[in-house]
Amino acid sequence: MLPQLDATHDPRLASWVASANGHPDFPIQNLPFGIVSAGGGARRAAVAIGEKALDLDAALAAGLFTGDEARAVEAMAGGALNGFLALGAGPRRALRARLSEILREGAPERGKAEPLLVDLESCRLHLPARIGDYTDFYVGIHHATNVGRQFRPDNPLLPNYKWVPIGYHGRASSIVPSGTPIRRPRGQIKGPDFAEPVFTASRRLDYELELGIWIGPGNDLGAPIPIGEADEHIAGYSLLNDWSARDIQAWEYQPLGPFLAKSFASTVSPWIVTPEALAPFRGPQPARPEGDPSPLPYLADTADQAGGALAIALEVHLLTPGLKEKGLAPQRLSRSDARHMYWTAAQIVAHHASGGCNLNPGDFLGTGTISGPDGTSTGSLLEASLGGNQPIRLESGEERSFLQDGDEVVLTARCARDGAAPIGFGECRGAILPAL
Amino acid sequence: MLPQLDATHDPRLASWVASANGHPDFPIQNLPFGIVSAGGGARRAAVAIGEKALDLDAALAAGLFTGDEARAVEAMAGGALNGFLALGAGPRRALRARLSEILREGAPERGKAEPLLVDLESCRLHLPARIGDYTDFYVGIHHATNVGRQFRPDNPLLPNYKWVPIGYHGRASSIVPSGTPIRRPRGQIKGPDFAEPVFTASRRLDYELELGIWIGPGNDLGAPIPIGEADEHIAGYSLLNDWSARDIQAWEYQPLGPFLAKSFASTVSPWIVTPEALAPFRGPQPARPEGDPSPLPYLADTADQAGGALAIALEVHLLTPGLKEKGLAPQRLSRSDARHMYWTAAQIVAHHASGGCNLNPGDFLGTGTISGPDGTSTGSLLEASLGGNQPIRLESGEERSFLQDGDEVVLTARCARDGAAPIGFGECRGAILPAL
Repeated sequence: MLPQLDATHDPRLASWVASANGHPDFPIQNLPFGIVSAGGGARRAAVAIGEKALDLDAALAAGLFTGDEARAVEAMAGGALNGFLALGAGPRRALRARLSEILREGAPERGKAEPLLVDLESCRLHLPARIGDYTDFYVGIHHATNVGRQFRPDNPLLPNYKWVPIGYHGRASSIVPSGTPIRRPRGQIKGPDFAEPVFTASRRLDYELELGIWIGPGNDLGAPIPIGEADEHIAGYSLLNDWSARDIQAWEYQPLGPFLAKSFASTVSPWIVTPEALAPFRGPQPARPEGDPSPLPYLADTADQAGGALAIALEVHLLTPGLKEKGLAPQRLSRSDARHMYWTAAQIVAHHASGGCNLNPGDFLGTGTISGPDGTSTGSLLEASLGGNQPIRLESGEERSFLQDGDEVVLTARCARDGAAPIGFGECRGAILPAL
Repeated sequence: MLPQLDATHDPRLASWVASANGHPDFPIQNLPFGIVSAGGGARRAAVAIGEKALDLDAALAAGLFTGDEARAVEAMAGGALNGFLALGAGPRRALRARLSEILREGAPERGKAEPLLVDLESCRLHLPARIGDYTDFYVGIHHATNVGRQFRPDNPLLPNYKWVPIGYHGRASSIVPSGTPIRRPRGQIKGPDFAEPVFTASRRLDYELELGIWIGPGNDLGAPIPIGEADEHIAGYSLLNDWSARDIQAWEYQPLGPFLAKSFASTVSPWIVTPEALAPFRGPQPARPEGDPSPLPYLADTADQAGGALAIALEVHLLTPGLKEKGLAPQRLSRSDARHMYWTAAQIVAHHASGGCNLNPGDFLGTGTISGPDGTSTGSLLEASLGGNQPIRLESGEERSFLQDGDEVVLTARCARDGAAPIGFGECRGAILPAL
């Protein structure tokens, strides 16, 4: 069942945490969960509020939670949220409602809670969960079209695209939290003009703008998740930068798909934005273009078609050494939206489990690159530079076809609509280190 | 460094565990490690010896180990061998040497050790380690050729095959130990004569005969493993059946590779056969055919080329309802050999880490299907039945193009050569349940 709007979404709500009011990412209507540590201390479960994080382990010890709320925080023990994700929507909603009470202006709990706040700036932000398996999908239809066009100008989308939510298994071990530097990979590369490949540093390093889905309770092996129940297994969302070495990919990917071109690193934003926080920004799945097939029954659900799309503005910003030198801000390269997903999150989950594959709490599913329909909304440099053939000109006078050493990529995600308090995801950031 | 032959390999060694002497899989020269439970009890680390398993946790408590041997067994705590795999070769070799002493005929430790034996037949055998990430390679060149020929008769191998150890990420959550029943998956299937796909039970369910490599210490993110050190990160081997739904695969796999066609289940044999046990069966990498490229420097190592190949006879046996009804034994469908790997295990490991991807203790790498050069040595039914066009005739009078419900597939692996005691891997077994 899709989450309903309730008192926690009221746009008039303000928090006694002053920095939360009007905060572009973490006002009191958001309340995303994560894992933080401060001063080299242990990892603690936390909720972000403005420029602060409330230490939930400490808040539990201070007696601020009872019942389902307490059960939710108890399940966050051990420096990872997997146990909490496993509990599903009930305890998560109870905790959200209670946090909204505790943190709102005038709350009698302020005296107990205020000493348990830590400055986000002084915190280290970790991956919010241990990721057992990571899968990356390909549901950004404009991305699939743009990339396909580079290979097959007349027929960019393969025949299965509008039937199958295309996905592939990714590498879980090399997923890192926002802020972790990214080492440019070396790999086998064969230029079109060379007879033999060489092993060298990638020269076509790229980002990919994606959303990621955190799995909640999940399913047993052999027991598919019906589309009507898929939302119950979605515990939240983060941003994902699926770094890609296009030259390694081009040589290695036939016939079994991308491998080392992706597995050197993927960056995730550290806060899990819940389905509850996103409830005001859901809407109907965009109408399929005339002639597109209807989803097969195992992917079709009336409620999902009516409310399964998410209006999330997604942006890519680039900060280069040249921009830094001139004192310029990170330059926005693109602005897209999660509404450009051809399949909903519920369809992704139901498809993944449809053959019996078991999804576990803390598994992470990338959507694939979410590009928009034109050149201002591309989710990768491969698209923005038309395969490297048309470099982007930056305000610093620099040009980029692909990423250079020292470049820093920042992805952001923000939701806004009339009558709702805007919320955001926080940053998904990574800077490129030179190859070894 | 490759393991050397020592007293533990002496073919004249016999054990006071009578069933070990002449045992086709687990004589005293093998000593593979695993995780067992008996009578619903806790998971315990164990070593297989003949028809028995020695409870290593109990043997540690009984004071049978000191120093590195004790450290090795202590690291096996918690019902999974990951901590032991992380220790690397030193403690593993010390434990092997000590177990060889304890279990050999005339050992004074017999009195202490004999009560700690359990019957393998009464044990439940679990996955030996928690698998963080699972990768499947494609290094069986005859398999790649056979499958490629079905699509491209004149040019079966793609241009990258002899340069790149081709691999892709697989699904870790659905790996199950030998004996677990396998539910036939449902999925999207589009027959060549149909305009649209349907969601239905797979009709082209297949096995794949593979070896699997268990990762030992592993590497940090961004720190590749040089080929000369790759063997130090291989903790052992098991058999792997990478069940495959060919009809789901054919429709879904472009452009990102196999996904739900594989992720419904993979079966692993429960014993980790160590590099030490396999030392007598190593030999030179088969000469590359005239005209094949030399491995690039990051994959080239003199010692690996001299001793990196493993002579392991691999067999597929099938037990059908019809064979059972007639009282017939499982029928051998094929006999192959791990020498047909185009790349060595060390090359697989070095390639996987070459771009900086981190491998962790307990990660599992499949070799890909290991077929031989002719029709008696195919590692899958897809090959044996020429894409389903030429069914196999069984001794029961039944025919098989692909697996039917109730069919049971048993993979075995055995090593033998003059002057060495033969050893084996135990079974990798799974029976097909009807689709839901």
